[in-house]
Amino acid sequence: MLAKKAKKYRDMVCIGRTHGVHAEPTTFGLKLALWCDEVKRDLERLKQAKEEVSVGKISGAVGTFANVDPQVEVYICKKLGLKAANISTQVIQRDVYAQYMAVLAVIGASLEKFATELRHLQRTEVLEAEEPFGKGQKGSSAMPHKRNPVICERICGLARLLRGNALAAIENVALWHERDISHSSVERVIFPDSTLALDYMLHKFIQVIDGLQVYPDNMLANLARTHGLIFSQRVLLTLMDKGLPRMKAYDLVQRCAMKTWKDGSDFKDNLSQDKDVARYLSVRELDKIFDLDYYLRHVKKIFNRAGL
Amino acid sequence: MLAKKAKKYRDMVCIGRTHGVHAEPTTFGLKLALWCDEVKRDLERLKQAKEEVSVGKISGAVGTFANVDPQVEVYICKKLGLKAANISTQVIQRDVYAQYMAVLAVIGASLEKFATELRHLQRTEVLEAEEPFGKGQKGSSAMPHKRNPVICERICGLARLLRGNALAAIENVALWHERDISHSSVERVIFPDSTLALDYMLHKFIQVIDGLQVYPDNMLANLARTHGLIFSQRVLLTLMDKGLPRMKAYDLVQRCAMKTWKDGSDFKDNLSQDKDVARYLSVRELDKIFDLDYYLRHVKKIFNRAGL
Amino acid sequence: MLAKKAKKYRDMVCIGRTHGVHAEPTTFGLKLALWCDEVKRDLERLKQAKEEVSVGKISGAVGTFANVDPQVEVYICKKLGLKAANISTQVIQRDVYAQYMAVLAVIGASLEKFATELRHLQRTEVLEAEEPFGKGQKGSSAMPHKRNPVICERICGLARLLRGNALAAIENVALWHERDISHSSVERVIFPDSTLALDYMLHKFIQVIDGLQVYPDNMLANLARTHGLIFSQRVLLTLMDKGLPRMKAYDLVQRCAMKTWKDGSDFKDNLSQDKDVARYLSVRELDKIFDLDYYLRHVKKIFNRAGL
Amino acid sequence: MLAKKAKKYRDMVCIGRTHGVHAEPTTFGLKLALWCDEVKRDLERLKQAKEEVSVGKISGAVGTFANVDPQVEVYICKKLGLKAANISTQVIQRDVYAQYMAVLAVIGASLEKFATELRHLQRTEVLEAEEPFGKGQKGSSAMPHKRNPVICERICGLARLLRGNALAAIENVALWHERDISHSSVERVIFPDSTLALDYMLHKFIQVIDGLQVYPDNMLANLARTHGLIFSQRVLLTLMDKGLPRMKAYDLVQRCAMKTWKDGSDFKDNLSQDKDVARYLSVRELDKIFDLDYYLRHVKKIFNRAGL
Repeated sequence: MLAKKAKKYRDMVCIGRTHGVHAEPTTFGLKLALWCDEVKRDLERLKQAKEEVSVGKISGAVGTFANVDPQVEVYICKKLGLKAANISTQVIQRDVYAQYMAVLAVIGASLEKFATELRHLQRTEVLEAEEPFGKGQKGSSAMPHKRNPVICERICGLARLLRGNALAAIENVALWHERDISHSSVERVIFPDSTLALDYMLHKFIQVIDGLQVYPDNMLANLARTHGLIFSQRVLLTLMDKGLPRMKAYDLVQRCAMKTWKDGSDFKDNLSQDKDVARYLSVRELDKIFDLDYYLRHVKKIFNRAGL
Repeated sequence: MLAKKAKKYRDMVCIGRTHGVHAEPTTFGLKLALWCDEVKRDLERLKQAKEEVSVGKISGAVGTFANVDPQVEVYICKKLGLKAANISTQVIQRDVYAQYMAVLAVIGASLEKFATELRHLQRTEVLEAEEPFGKGQKGSSAMPHKRNPVICERICGLARLLRGNALAAIENVALWHERDISHSSVERVIFPDSTLALDYMLHKFIQVIDGLQVYPDNMLANLARTHGLIFSQRVLLTLMDKGLPRMKAYDLVQRCAMKTWKDGSDFKDNLSQDKDVARYLSVRELDKIFDLDYYLRHVKKIFNRAGL
Repeated sequence: MLAKKAKKYRDMVCIGRTHGVHAEPTTFGLKLALWCDEVKRDLERLKQAKEEVSVGKISGAVGTFANVDPQVEVYICKKLGLKAANISTQVIQRDVYAQYMAVLAVIGASLEKFATELRHLQRTEVLEAEEPFGKGQKGSSAMPHKRNPVICERICGLARLLRGNALAAIENVALWHERDISHSSVERVIFPDSTLALDYMLHKFIQVIDGLQVYPDNMLANLARTHGLIFSQRVLLTLMDKGLPRMKAYDLVQRCAMKTWKDGSDFKDNLSQDKDVARYLSVRELDKIFDLDYYLRHVKKIFNRAGL
Repeated sequence: MLAKKAKKYRDMVCIGRTHGVHAEPTTFGLKLALWCDEVKRDLERLKQAKEEVSVGKISGAVGTFANVDPQVEVYICKKLGLKAANISTQVIQRDVYAQYMAVLAVIGASLEKFATELRHLQRTEVLEAEEPFGKGQKGSSAMPHKRNPVICERICGLARLLRGNALAAIENVALWHERDISHSSVERVIFPDSTLALDYMLHKFIQVIDGLQVYPDNMLANLARTHGLIFSQRVLLTLMDKGLPRMKAYDLVQRCAMKTWKDGSDFKDNLSQDKDVARYLSVRELDKIFDLDYYLRHVKKIFNRAGL
């Protein structure tokens, strides 16, 4: 699902943001491809953690098989689809469950990251994407823009729960001697809660991705919001290629950029109308610089590397 | 080191305890073999986590390689012994560090478990083992028994630090868009602190195991502390094998056991002097029941299964 | 400082957002007044926690004053500006430090909330405020809009550290008997780290508030971004006051609102040009409805209640 | 209940332990008095936290009372036994619940400490106290000593849950703008779970204290387990009072102490039979030194200071 969507939006250009501030163009598909790669890591972690917890034991009161033959353990574990623990006390050692719960928390944090991105994109001022909004659903009585990313917010919240539970699971490791039962009360709460919560989060996230509303026009509008300033670094580099010393080139670019920043005028226009700049860059050259495709020329290769 | 010690003490019998209360005999080597098995899991986790974090990226401000060729990234990462990230933003995604820090916390919890066991064994009333005590070191001015398991206590404490730091690392995953820098201040503290702390804990633990004082006489004395009651279950089972109904057998055993519990008399003596019991079990048979070797007959096999 | 700024911006209107989506008008001063109120609670918590930890003890190896008179403890604690603990073991009980560290974490979370708000307001698309930006400081080589809220991001990060450390402190409470020293290794790290980090965060936050850049024009522009839709609820209520049944009123409002949402036309214009609406609401009445002051008529009272 | 028990056992002497190793005599009542003092602190914390969360709000979508008069809030909150929040957004600020949950976690840690002490005292080798054991309850089929401190272990486990939940609550503080709903999913789990768990823990702990089995004979036997070595420091101090230089006195004490430690002979006998010691200390003086009452002479005063 995620991979399909990543491919679908592979070339849909949008602004990349660092610190919440516009940086350089990227594509919406790249955002999703990033998640695909992370989900793959999460799946691998889950697979390993699941294998680790898939052990059983019937080795008696302190793990010596005093009154039961080791073969019984092997036999029954096999029947249950489990591996017999190499060695145990009265219980399976708790590190395997600690690891499992930690992995659930890490996966929860991945989902929290994805959901946080969508919450950002759904902001009124940004509005590049929205989580699906049921037909009958009402965000607000009369305000049609009041579509709230409540599913994504819920996913973020539950990620906190998974973290807290992971911690309790790690505290459960240091049992006394051949076992004490302090882990039991905790596990009766955190095992069902964390597995159910993550299952729910995953289902909800799939539902969000499946029905995701994407607004390319807003992406382009947001890209234009700084009137071309996002290309300033490339202007600078080109002027330097033309032989200008860095400081000199910087001053020229900065002069035009500040004008744009202050009065909202078009950055490319300011450059082309700047006599000093014009001496080095023709309008045609400027057009070449102000080219989104330049930023996206490696997108295919990145998708390839990410196995998409 | 741990494996060597496990083998050395493979057949050194001691009481197994559940809930802190005497249960059935086990061996000191089995305790250590259990740890060997857990350390193996920890090493595997660390290996995988280390592989996960061994990635680098030089993909530009938002991960598009806008002004740098992907080949540069591959080349430099290779030089640094890193894998180039399949896909990145301005930074490597934080889930890999979260996973790494969670693994450090789980390993810390393993060490905490081992250290807790030794702290228990070093109690004045138990005194089956002691962490090494330097020649010049003074536990207390004049009390020669005042050797405190301070290294093991330190290991336990630092395990708490690792847990707290793991949590902060998992919270670092959900950065905004193509990166915000909120993870940085945290990582400057928790990365060096957790890696150094775990390194220190491991060194200290090795030192503890290397110089571990083990007191077999005290192990035997503790085994005898319940005057043979730890064999009561086997007496019960044997009486049942002889044809006694469970309730009847239970009453006989319970009668003799309670006498022992109350006046500290020897359980085997009480049984042999009990007319009803004597009808079913000869002194010779009782001797066979009160046999520690019975409990240890599978120890070799367990060691084999644990690869020791 | 915060109170002064709150008063300064008391009537500076801006959009209030729930779920990141525009809701109803509020003022920038109200945001700050909310923080003032929270800071007051934090100060009270800190005061109490500080009082709790301001205890000392010189009561001997297990707290019985075996070789030191209780008066000595009282005398020395007084000299140190501490209260003598009512009762102690070899150490002050760790619950007081756990509580203290938990309070630091809660205060850190308050600062995280404030800093998160500012990070949101500094987004390129929102740009209602910016943390101070040093003269010589460069966000990016040539992009004048590239001012990153790095201080606020740092504050957010360190809040995670405080949480993790609080947890370790709470784990420190359950020492064995009259003390074990497992708390010590942890406290040597978390006490200086958390107190220094919070001190740093507070200083940085004060610096941010002191030099905060506020952009009222952008606040108004953002308010206008939904072309008047934020007044829709009030239109609905007024129509109902005029005797229209809710469903009927809702349909009228919804019709005009959807037009605005789709083509970006002015909501008030749509209403005044809607024949059905015009029957109930004159242009003058509409003007009265589309009045920001209405939303702010209780601001003074709220400030009073918050002691500002 | 706890205070009553503390007073009851005020003068019941037992060994004080640091690092799990015998240190100096104390009394069982002092252990309980220590808990009384901590419970008082916990109650004060809970009272304040409860007061903090006892606020309500009806201030509209973003906290401006746009469509509801502030008086309505005051009126309804009063009816509900709540204070109206000085200022709010769409919701009560989450720091008050974070503080509340942190306090629950600290209280849980106190109970964990008490329960851990009892688990230690119930160890087979120590057996100074036991949690109540139901008549029909069976620890083990035939072993009458197999009474497991399962309630105390359960309390310890649930303390971990409270810690994890507190953390999630602190993470809930930093909501976006005038609210996002990410806190809600978490709170639906952690609020009922933590309050119910702590309530249960408190009830169980009261039940444990109420029915606590205390074994004074075992306390005395444990005191004697080091054959008088616990008095060695006082011997040393008395020899120094008699004019011996510290090093000389130390050597004498150490000599006799080591003999005791090695062969289990009585320390006082060894001292009285040591010619060098005998020159300074008469048998009568030794008797005075080996006096448990000396260690307990301040117990009443401590109880007074603790308000017992």
